[in-house]
Amino acid sequence: MIKDMKDIVSLCKRRGFIFPASDIYGGINGFWDYGPLGTELKNNIRDLWWKAMVLTPPVGPDGQPVQIVGLDSAIIQNPKCWEASGHIGGFNDPMVDCKETKKRYRADHLVAYVISHYMDDDQPELKLIPVFEQNTPEEEILKKFKKLGLGASTENYKVIPFMDIENYHYTNPDNDHGMLHLEEGKSILRLRKDKLVGPDVKIPDTLTEPKQFNLMFHTFVGANATEDDKAYLRPETCAGIFLNFKNIIDTARVKVPFGIAQIGKAFRNEVTPRNFIFRSREFEQMELEWFCEKEDAPQWFEFWVDQRKKWWESIGMDLSKFHFLDVEKADLAHYSDRTIDFEYQFPFAYPDYDELEGIAHRGNFDLTQHQEFSGQKLEYMDPSDNTKRYLPDVIEPSCGLTRAVLGVLSEAYTVDESRPSGVYLNFHPSVAPKKAAILPLTAKEEHVPIATKLYMDLREEFAIDLDVKQNIGKRYARQDEIGTPYCFTVDNQTLEDQTVTVRDRNTMTQERVNMDQVASYLRENLKPAKVMAKKEG
Amino acid sequence: MIKDMKDIVSLCKRRGFIFPASDIYGGINGFWDYGPLGTELKNNIRDLWWKAMVLTPPVGPDGQPVQIVGLDSAIIQNPKCWEASGHIGGFNDPMVDCKETKKRYRADHLVAYVISHYMDDDQPELKLIPVFEQNTPEEEILKKFKKLGLGASTENYKVIPFMDIENYHYTNPDNDHGMLHLEEGKSILRLRKDKLVGPDVKIPDTLTEPKQFNLMFHTFVGANATEDDKAYLRPETCAGIFLNFKNIIDTARVKVPFGIAQIGKAFRNEVTPRNFIFRSREFEQMELEWFCEKEDAPQWFEFWVDQRKKWWESIGMDLSKFHFLDVEKADLAHYSDRTIDFEYQFPFAYPDYDELEGIAHRGNFDLTQHQEFSGQKLEYMDPSDNTKRYLPDVIEPSCGLTRAVLGVLSEAYTVDESRPSGVYLNFHPSVAPKKAAILPLTAKEEHVPIATKLYMDLREEFAIDLDVKQNIGKRYARQDEIGTPYCFTVDNQTLEDQTVTVRDRNTMTQERVNMDQVASYLRENLKPAKVMAKKEG
Repeated sequence: MIKDMKDIVSLCKRRGFIFPASDIYGGINGFWDYGPLGTELKNNIRDLWWKAMVLTPPVGPDGQPVQIVGLDSAIIQNPKCWEASGHIGGFNDPMVDCKETKKRYRADHLVAYVISHYMDDDQPELKLIPVFEQNTPEEEILKKFKKLGLGASTENYKVIPFMDIENYHYTNPDNDHGMLHLEEGKSILRLRKDKLVGPDVKIPDTLTEPKQFNLMFHTFVGANATEDDKAYLRPETCAGIFLNFKNIIDTARVKVPFGIAQIGKAFRNEVTPRNFIFRSREFEQMELEWFCEKEDAPQWFEFWVDQRKKWWESIGMDLSKFHFLDVEKADLAHYSDRTIDFEYQFPFAYPDYDELEGIAHRGNFDLTQHQEFSGQKLEYMDPSDNTKRYLPDVIEPSCGLTRAVLGVLSEAYTVDESRPSGVYLNFHPSVAPKKAAILPLTAKEEHVPIATKLYMDLREEFAIDLDVKQNIGKRYARQDEIGTPYCFTVDNQTLEDQTVTVRDRNTMTQERVNMDQVASYLRENLKPAKVMAKKEG
Repeated sequence: MIKDMKDIVSLCKRRGFIFPASDIYGGINGFWDYGPLGTELKNNIRDLWWKAMVLTPPVGPDGQPVQIVGLDSAIIQNPKCWEASGHIGGFNDPMVDCKETKKRYRADHLVAYVISHYMDDDQPELKLIPVFEQNTPEEEILKKFKKLGLGASTENYKVIPFMDIENYHYTNPDNDHGMLHLEEGKSILRLRKDKLVGPDVKIPDTLTEPKQFNLMFHTFVGANATEDDKAYLRPETCAGIFLNFKNIIDTARVKVPFGIAQIGKAFRNEVTPRNFIFRSREFEQMELEWFCEKEDAPQWFEFWVDQRKKWWESIGMDLSKFHFLDVEKADLAHYSDRTIDFEYQFPFAYPDYDELEGIAHRGNFDLTQHQEFSGQKLEYMDPSDNTKRYLPDVIEPSCGLTRAVLGVLSEAYTVDESRPSGVYLNFHPSVAPKKAAILPLTAKEEHVPIATKLYMDLREEFAIDLDVKQNIGKRYARQDEIGTPYCFTVDNQTLEDQTVTVRDRNTMTQERVNMDQVASYLRENLKPAKVMAKKEG
């Protein structure tokens, strides 16, 4: 069954995972608040990544654990940092404004519908050219066609990227009986740009030329607000790592190859934030920069691709819903030798994929740039040969923590009409915000103190929910919707034989266990290796 | 022995706790990066607070654990939020500029030295009035006096707040033989403001009138940068809690009394960031808003004061170096009934104190404001009596995570000239970035694999450092300086009898333990209840 984003968004709000930021003030586009369960879910993913990277880094090809240290650098850095990284010069999207509606569009996300053939004696320059945002539903396109008198079908139209309009013209192959064809290349009839009709208007010629727009939020540090005081909110966490490369090799007793890992917020002034928390203006990243010698980089690249696959699997992601995009040479940044994007089949992209993580071999571009712009020597000196000094190459596994939250939620969301909630979250136990719930069957005097005691006994070791009021069916439904693997219920039989029922989230089967076995039951069943029983929705 | 801030700053940089942000670019005033050990230290404090608040909240007066849920709200919120909270209108400091040096001062941090007595026939308006920043050392004051020809002592001068200058005048009590006295009140001779000499100049009349300066960083959200698009970086995390009060009572099954806790970054455009990470422009807070009925608020206030004291003690802070300031009625914000500041004897303040945490009874000011500005009903409905609707009162224990890091570092910093490092960090085990170090005595083939195996066995359970190279004395010195409670050394005897030495950080005593007892040794000795042996420096 195809999962629907709006159902996931709705559950997230209903159960307290994720709320629109400033909800009571009508929100603020592109910002989200993590509620009680969303915060725990996000913290769990954060801690699992940190553990896999910094606290217990993987064993390398030589059988020794690799060296990785953590970092937490400031969001606001000296603005020269962003000149060096190229963000001030280059971190721009081409934007198009509509003079009529004041709306703004990313030019590279617009497409134009241009009639593909004309007779010589038509007047092609008089035809309107409707422009749409990518992925506009067919019925909306047809509605607009009707309004503009362009016919009841798009079949005679060619869809071309807005940015490429300059390149398209009508040409007349000699042998074609006066028929003009829309083609790239030499012009017979040029497309008239004043015939373009923007996505949200009915009249032509309201769109401006594309212009660049910097995606970094800026602010002013200090008491004045002059250009000299301008600073930026970091658009990615990795820059802080490069800035501290020298301080870390000087103080942390690390030797190449080694890594520096960071988790933190980043900000991008996206023109059209969308797809829930997938493309928001404030988000969190988890980035590792792995420093190694140039000749070892390809091998480390493979190592990290493999490690990162294992990690996603370890938190319950289904690799069969991943697409590993080996980015084509022509599409790579000039400094990159290779990049593999881990794309996941997010519900909003289905049956397509969108990016969850990218693993890039960045050469030594960043260190080279910072060395040049700062005038500081950033070279690493090989401790066994101090004539060998170099800027190491970098392999960067970089993923979004907030995107990981959306991935995990999407993966876990399971429709099951056989249960009262109609849905449950099939979280891997390692990420589940609550590992178990303790439920007194009734709010009667007898059940509550026993449940409370059990909760107190368990909570030092496990994240436990104690939920006292409401009928038990509603409470099970809630635990299903928040993805709690196990519910332990204290009932009248508990008073007699000290057993409680345990209900399995996925199978909904119940059995009884002795109260003093609950901790060991959880220890056993929450083990990462334990395969979860699945009931497909 | 008095601890010196510059020694602490120096150790923090030398050992990779804290670096100036953008160090290679000459830094950026008021921003700091947390290096490998600083990040772990900060994470430990963060996690201990979160555990104490959200995962295992304390048991309340009724014997039941209190209810607290977590939140992680966005740094950038709808700007209306800051109108409601009063930050756009009121979050201002009065600032004074120096026209000569372009320096800017907080007016309420400046004092003026004014001669306290004049003879009628003197010309008091010709005397210069030197202005200093608070806490300027006496010798600097006297140097300036000399330069300005004001004599070799300050004893005939009265020190008055810069902001109060308007109120001071020379008056002539009739019976005083022509002597004028500097007094508040009715004027005979006014102080001439054009005689004020700013802190960093030698000439009078360069200071401007105080003007207000908003401490919030602003930015612009969306493609334009007009006033309509202006937004702010939050100056405190608590606002996000009030914004989500309604969403949380609607979704999280909490009942008054309950709490919402948040840890996160906040930003203040401080005019003069100072005292290392104590007053920085980017910092982290840990805040709890505890919602309760008005009549219960005083009792909950006491409860939280008590809980917070226990917490600080549990992470190794010495309460005898705290000053609990019960803020005077006259100094309280208009909405607050009571505030207690937890002040700590930071080295920069010694023998004085500065604020580490504040516990405030805020009434229902915040919810009232947000209800009014948003037009949304935020009232809580008592589930047992739905005619009872009200905005609960709030008790707010609010502390700085980054200040806590400085507090913990200051507390732990211990001079001990008997050891090679001359200093060690006497961290409580719960906050120590590394709980133990595994050190092969030599980098010889025999010791390293055993040490590596021991490290691998332990690292799932404890934060362990494996440090292979350098002579053992230097490695002990390093572990002392990073505050590792225990060092386990693999030596030749280990090859024979499977024992390792364990060295206690504080006592420097060594004993041998069997390798397979190391985990249980750590479990036992890292227990929070275990009193650490102390060797005073």
